[in-house]
Amino acid sequence: MTERKISMAVIRRLPRYYRYLGELLDNGVTKVSSSKLSVSMNVTASQIRQDLNNFGGFGQQGYGYNVEHLYTEIGKILGLNRVYKMVLIGAGNLGQALANYQTFNKRGFELISIFDLNPKVVGLFINGIEVLDIDKLYDFLQTNPIDIAILTMPQIGVEQMASNLVKWGVKGIWNFSPVDLTSSSNVVIENVNLSYSLMTLAYQIHQHK
Amino acid sequence: MTERKISMAVIRRLPRYYRYLGELLDNGVTKVSSSKLSVSMNVTASQIRQDLNNFGGFGQQGYGYNVEHLYTEIGKILGLNRVYKMVLIGAGNLGQALANYQTFNKRGFELISIFDLNPKVVGLFINGIEVLDIDKLYDFLQTNPIDIAILTMPQIGVEQMASNLVKWGVKGIWNFSPVDLTSSSNVVIENVNLSYSLMTLAYQIHQHK
Repeated sequence: MTERKISMAVIRRLPRYYRYLGELLDNGVTKVSSSKLSVSMNVTASQIRQDLNNFGGFGQQGYGYNVEHLYTEIGKILGLNRVYKMVLIGAGNLGQALANYQTFNKRGFELISIFDLNPKVVGLFINGIEVLDIDKLYDFLQTNPIDIAILTMPQIGVEQMASNLVKWGVKGIWNFSPVDLTSSSNVVIENVNLSYSLMTLAYQIHQHK
Repeated sequence: MTERKISMAVIRRLPRYYRYLGELLDNGVTKVSSSKLSVSMNVTASQIRQDLNNFGGFGQQGYGYNVEHLYTEIGKILGLNRVYKMVLIGAGNLGQALANYQTFNKRGFELISIFDLNPKVVGLFINGIEVLDIDKLYDFLQTNPIDIAILTMPQIGVEQMASNLVKWGVKGIWNFSPVDLTSSSNVVIENVNLSYSLMTLAYQIHQHK
């Protein structure tokens, strides 16, 4: 597998290609040139060719890319040709927002259960899923193997929670808490730190003058 | 200004330094070595020295870094030594979650107003701020200069909204919609595409086996 050597910068561009190709497919478009992709996606055509060459090309000179084939192949590379079972931990506003995203489900990300420690929230249904008491998490994971835990809990206890989740078999953590977690041999972490994102925007505005 | 040449990869690490140094400050720590920073932040010491050298160093051989000085300087580089006025457009779950983040306000990001087109939401107060009808946005921006618009609206109309916001003087857009926007000479964009983030996590889990 050559995929192992691909840089994360390339990987992070793939979902954009995937989404855009999906839109083309929905509109009945069957082939597309790298220059058309380039204009629509605001990436240079040579960048696109380079990115896709990482995965063995898929393009044909003078013809362009077969949209469906490219879409399917990128989906396979991203690992989207399977289902990921997820739990969400922390049913606050952000947790509720994520639980309500319909697109995730369509892409094979299946939210199985929601946990919280707040008695006011436990027992509510969000997007048809009951919020369970966090004390039931361990038992739940014994009988329901989970791929991804979404952490939308506040800062306190995040590290402990993450380490428990790994012990209990969770393979990936989508971490929205303000604490950065680190991937290890046992778990893959995707940190979404909104404060950092906002500070980066501030930097760019500040420099932009 | 040497800052112009700094790569976005370095810039994106600065908020992490900033946050960690802020915690040290809160705990009364006055100096820190690059190796201590390295362990706590899971970045190599040489990476830290290299990153900070981009901004003229701030470290002293054999002494380490003066925490307060470094914190202040990184804050200045990030443009956090001023106030950013913000509006939020789209008062759904995600918008409400962002409106309720207390930390943003502490860091100088001041949410001034919230807009939505849903009559069920208009007139509600979120974190003490009234949700106004989106039709009032133009008038509002005439009398209230705004730095940052947070876009938490659905896909439809996002591009039009973004182009209006730029016309009406907004300098930066923090874009949570599923549509990627592109920075231009008139506006700085920070896209937070949650689907892409989740797909990247899937990729890593898929590869991790």
